[in-house]
Amino acid sequence: HAGLIVIDGLEYSNWNRALFEELKAGGITAVHATAVYWEDARQTLALLADWNRRFREHADLIRPVTSGEDIRAAKREGRIAFLLGAQNCSPIEQDLGLVEIFRHLGLMVMQLTYNNQSPLGGGCYEAVDSGLTRFGREVLKEMNRVGMITDLSHSGEKTTLDTIEQSTRPVCISHANLSFFHENIRNKSERVL
Amino acid sequence: HAGLIVIDGLEYSNWNRALFEELKAGGITAVHATAVYWEDARQTLALLADWNRRFREHADLIRPVTSGEDIRAAKREGRIAFLLGAQNCSPIEQDLGLVEIFRHLGLMVMQLTYNNQSPLGGGCYEAVDSGLTRFGREVLKEMNRVGMITDLSHSGEKTTLDTIEQSTRPVCISHANLSFFHENIRNKSERVL
Repeated sequence: HAGLIVIDGLEYSNWNRALFEELKAGGITAVHATAVYWEDARQTLALLADWNRRFREHADLIRPVTSGEDIRAAKREGRIAFLLGAQNCSPIEQDLGLVEIFRHLGLMVMQLTYNNQSPLGGGCYEAVDSGLTRFGREVLKEMNRVGMITDLSHSGEKTTLDTIEQSTRPVCISHANLSFFHENIRNKSERVL
Repeated sequence: HAGLIVIDGLEYSNWNRALFEELKAGGITAVHATAVYWEDARQTLALLADWNRRFREHADLIRPVTSGEDIRAAKREGRIAFLLGAQNCSPIEQDLGLVEIFRHLGLMVMQLTYNNQSPLGGGCYEAVDSGLTRFGREVLKEMNRVGMITDLSHSGEKTTLDTIEQSTRPVCISHANLSFFHENIRNKSERVL
């Protein structure tokens, strides 16, 4: 299966050259890597600058992804494609304009919430799920417009369903299991599926 | 002279549609516009987000520039090309990685100093001109690498000469007059010319 494209749905690592080599030896084509967890806009710039340096220093092994074509190119080049993501909406703070800013900088995926309530929606561990909020709807529209993938892995059920209904583009659940397999608040229901 | 490319070396305005129409009526091809004066990295993101909105809302009149070809394209399209710049190095704070970050966001020009001493060099009003500093040399190398234009309009004489000597790309003085014309600390000497 040398022609197979294999995408790792989510990785969070203290990245270094040995790990990139291991991914290559393992036959991985692309990795959705967590670039941001809780960091605000300014801190996110520093994290993305670190990624720019990594892409430069290990250009023989890895490359950034800003389109589907980049993943196919990585396959041809024998490099690992890195799709950068945020596990929370902290990078955009309260500023709708930062969605496009971070998309331009190569942040391709963003979760609306990470377990807890965020300005955009309810996390899966909240007693009450707010659903997609007023600001959340505007951010979702903007993510759809600029082409940033909406990840619902840590969102509550109502927020997840609201987002699926209102998004004009496919959404993703990059890392979760199925409730029918194992009942757990982090897993996804038949209804969501 | 309908084919002539006319570039306004520097403009600082409270931009609106009427001003864009005036530039078009005046036959201007491109404008180097000050997007940033003293603002730090986070504030610069908000200012660049404002520019993204302007480019979208007035797409019939203006367009961003990230290459020389964009200026020729603007001429063909009958739109004004806006080259965004910072009059100081405040956006990059103390972080070399932010040069590439802001270049990716369309900040094409940066002054090393604005009248006063900066971490990069001496301003033209300082009693002692530090010349290009240790961090200044690293930033200049990085600006050369990523293709961000170095503007020396408000730099001191020694800083200006150091930068001209060490830059591997042409530098610019977007707005100043000539000392032989009028002796003034903001103007540029025969030696610099």
